[in-house]
Amino acid sequence: MAHFPASDGRPPWRALVLTLFPEMFPGPLGVSLLGQAHEAGLWSLETLQIRDFGLGRHRQVDDTPAGGGAGMVLRADVLGPALDHARTKSPDSPLIYLSPRGAPLTQAVARDLALGPGVTLLAGRFEGIDQRVIDEKGLREISIGDYVLAGGELPAMVLIEACVRLIPGVLGASESLASESFETGLLEYPQYTKPREWQGRSIPDILLSGDHKKIEEWRRRQAEDLTAARRPDLMGPTPRRK
Amino acid sequence: MAHFPASDGRPPWRALVLTLFPEMFPGPLGVSLLGQAHEAGLWSLETLQIRDFGLGRHRQVDDTPAGGGAGMVLRADVLGPALDHARTKSPDSPLIYLSPRGAPLTQAVARDLALGPGVTLLAGRFEGIDQRVIDEKGLREISIGDYVLAGGELPAMVLIEACVRLIPGVLGASESLASESFETGLLEYPQYTKPREWQGRSIPDILLSGDHKKIEEWRRRQAEDLTAARRPDLMGPTPRRK
Repeated sequence: MAHFPASDGRPPWRALVLTLFPEMFPGPLGVSLLGQAHEAGLWSLETLQIRDFGLGRHRQVDDTPAGGGAGMVLRADVLGPALDHARTKSPDSPLIYLSPRGAPLTQAVARDLALGPGVTLLAGRFEGIDQRVIDEKGLREISIGDYVLAGGELPAMVLIEACVRLIPGVLGASESLASESFETGLLEYPQYTKPREWQGRSIPDILLSGDHKKIEEWRRRQAEDLTAARRPDLMGPTPRRK
Repeated sequence: MAHFPASDGRPPWRALVLTLFPEMFPGPLGVSLLGQAHEAGLWSLETLQIRDFGLGRHRQVDDTPAGGGAGMVLRADVLGPALDHARTKSPDSPLIYLSPRGAPLTQAVARDLALGPGVTLLAGRFEGIDQRVIDEKGLREISIGDYVLAGGELPAMVLIEACVRLIPGVLGASESLASESFETGLLEYPQYTKPREWQGRSIPDILLSGDHKKIEEWRRRQAEDLTAARRPDLMGPTPRRK
């Protein structure tokens, strides 16, 4: 397995996840690019079982919503001490609660978090968590998208993966961040590779021309057209093309 | 472990994932709510190793981008046969490619997919896949958010989790879809539970009043204010409040 030594001797980027399902981790994060980077010491992952801070003999963590309604809500007097304990392990990381009510995760947010010491992530379950924990601990709420999941564990993994691949040394030299979707503010242009003909479909001639300036122009045009067609919201108020 | 038998005798909702990392599955999808629903036969999960369709002795799956550039692109003559094989296993499911260039996954998209027979998901790696596969097979491109990941595996899990929890019988009777974020078109109102006082912070009086009509109004107002403050893009062009 390839190694990517951290060249600047920095401590690893630290992910700490508070969850009722620590057995889900590292899961997909232990494989491939992320797994190799973990093995190389570029990032670390730790989980904290919320139930260890549960109340009474049954380690209760939740209760019914005040004011009525379906489901269960994670208690402030359980999450508060769990977060206090997390703070002693990772004092400098931002405290983030994964929630569909949060600010959308974007490439810019991931880039910003990847530059820091790491993240402490609270993964909720059930109907949510007591609002007083969010207020008291100043939790930053982040959403990975406008849909509802069964818990915050997959969102925590998504956020971690988005950040870790941006840590210097994680992507090999042959890989590039520069032309990716969102790094240019546009969706990525279409890609082609061998064979030249497949099912009667050819690679566009321009890509085989060897004219790098024209190829670059073509790709830029394709990325702009694709973004304008699919995601005009990313294009900004003024047109990018004359 | 609780069982939720399918009451209407329907075949399970089927997820088929084409990936270079089948060992990532079921991973987080095998635990908790999703794991229980799988055990109850409400949904099924199968993976297809893309490398089984690789070329030559080394089972090559990718090659350099036509026209130059960093990284590797998954080949059309590998993915094409892999998708053809997937079609024989799951002929009725939509073919979906997880990609940051795709249409955003929303709760409405998840609801629509959950009503169907299932999904066939292509999880890419590297710089992407040959555009001709997308065109030839009519792949539907879906994005889970405006950020870049190391591959399509976590997005596949996110899409599956968003859908499966909407399958009838998966959520217990005590849980509810109705008041969740996005189901009402708004972010969810704040939740509170016992204890009544915590760190000098009280549950809002209205929630302890027992006046269900007033509680409902308060929650609606909170959800509207939160959505207007954080996600005005979800509110639509006309104000919802007088």
